[in-house]
Amino acid sequence: MTISLEKARQMVAETRAKARTMGLKPLSVVVLDAGGHVLAFEREDGASPGRFEIARGKAYGAVMLGMPGSAQMARAEAQAYFMAAVNGAYGGKVIPVPGGVLVKDVAGEVIGAVGVTGDSSENDAEAALAGIAAAGFEGAA
Amino acid sequence: MTISLEKARQMVAETRAKARTMGLKPLSVVVLDAGGHVLAFEREDGASPGRFEIARGKAYGAVMLGMPGSAQMARAEAQAYFMAAVNGAYGGKVIPVPGGVLVKDVAGEVIGAVGVTGDSSENDAEAALAGIAAAGFEGAA
Amino acid sequence: MTISLEKARQMVAETRAKARTMGLKPLSVVVLDAGGHVLAFEREDGASPGRFEIARGKAYGAVMLGMPGSAQMARAEAQAYFMAAVNGAYGGKVIPVPGGVLVKDVAGEVIGAVGVTGDSSENDAEAALAGIAAAGFEGAA
Amino acid sequence: MTISLEKARQMVAETRAKARTMGLKPLSVVVLDAGGHVLAFEREDGASPGRFEIARGKAYGAVMLGMPGSAQMARAEAQAYFMAAVNGAYGGKVIPVPGGVLVKDVAGEVIGAVGVTGDSSENDAEAALAGIAAAGFEGAA
Repeated sequence: MTISLEKARQMVAETRAKARTMGLKPLSVVVLDAGGHVLAFEREDGASPGRFEIARGKAYGAVMLGMPGSAQMARAEAQAYFMAAVNGAYGGKVIPVPGGVLVKDVAGEVIGAVGVTGDSSENDAEAALAGIAAAGFEGAA
Repeated sequence: MTISLEKARQMVAETRAKARTMGLKPLSVVVLDAGGHVLAFEREDGASPGRFEIARGKAYGAVMLGMPGSAQMARAEAQAYFMAAVNGAYGGKVIPVPGGVLVKDVAGEVIGAVGVTGDSSENDAEAALAGIAAAGFEGAA
Repeated sequence: MTISLEKARQMVAETRAKARTMGLKPLSVVVLDAGGHVLAFEREDGASPGRFEIARGKAYGAVMLGMPGSAQMARAEAQAYFMAAVNGAYGGKVIPVPGGVLVKDVAGEVIGAVGVTGDSSENDAEAALAGIAAAGFEGAA
Repeated sequence: MTISLEKARQMVAETRAKARTMGLKPLSVVVLDAGGHVLAFEREDGASPGRFEIARGKAYGAVMLGMPGSAQMARAEAQAYFMAAVNGAYGGKVIPVPGGVLVKDVAGEVIGAVGVTGDSSENDAEAALAGIAAAGFEGAA
């Protein structure tokens, strides 16, 4: 199963809606496909200019390693040089903190990831999970 | 003047709407700000996975050089090594063909760029121009 | 609002003037626009040759993340792998220590950053703040 | 002999003054030292954001190869793959066209380079030559 653009846009919209109810700072939200490639992205007014790279980095590491941001962070805390090496292997595109959330279909297969940045990493992840659920998928943060 | 997310989304939506009336292949559309940083992106169903980089590359060169895609292409046709060198200087992020369209405000100042890829470069540019105009800005293709 | 070259030059000159009154070592001072692109730079006699990259790195991270150098340093102290990953995502251009100072207009909007290197990071930041204030802007160090 | 910051600033100012008398478009002007490292840079109002990289690229190739922009262009016209390979070896930092002008002292030794971009390559070079001469050095364009 693949994520349609309609579903990707829905995840972005619902993540942003959740962030508003939570009162978060301006967010940037990306949706990647199962190959780690960009499907959709939006950067809210007031976010700093470099947020695309951070959002993508969170989601990219999740898809490429099959590990959500929290698991990547745990590994980085235990073995910083390993995640640094992973980053080198992936061209510097991995940001190993919460806010990179795997998207799974009903069969439990990874079909992409959502990356969120702008507030605390934990709030970023919570908003992403809500957006993924609203689109009928399962999130792993 | 800066491009709000609302205006960026409008340019993406109207570019895609124009493409439908033209009967184009699946498009990918990016909007960059005046510093070349991503504001919004959408990749239509059926587009190949690497389209974000192409769309951004068209728009990025336009912003950074202040030259729309057609002018970049003319320079590349006349002096291929110059555009190759520019690409090196900008970290390999420039795609010098039509479909990279400058966005100007009413005062004529460049406030960003739209990058479109998926159909012929000329059709990509035509769709982008329509999207930019629909959002109340001036396009330079 | 954008930073004119005249204002950028004034910030460089006033930062250097402040450094002289403080008795600092030879400084290098860069001014970036709101997209992280270079507006003006000067390297004082006696400074080592690689100072442009350090000055720009301090200012670049500030603009791209919307976080002054002190906040980046705090994050690097708490989570070194995060700032290392950010650096990868931004092409290795980030130096996360004081001396990268955000420039804000009267409305509080970030319009660029000043990066200073040559003395202690704290002195670098103090000189930058003085230069920014002298030009009529608000600095966040 | 090395280029002092005072002399570097003088070359920038005189290059810009010459451009005004010639009626050129907004210029960006960089001065590099004998090691190819940045001493001073200014980007005039109205220039596109990516001009630092182009100005530096012109001057960098000149210093690193000991060949002014016109000689680099001649080589690129004759053997594009050679200049492309040079660019790879120098990290993508070379722009092999006029506007990269060597700065020599009275003994004929290369002590740095000026890089100018914004108008035609030939006009860029002419302005740089005037700026170098006004500072008491010899230019080779």
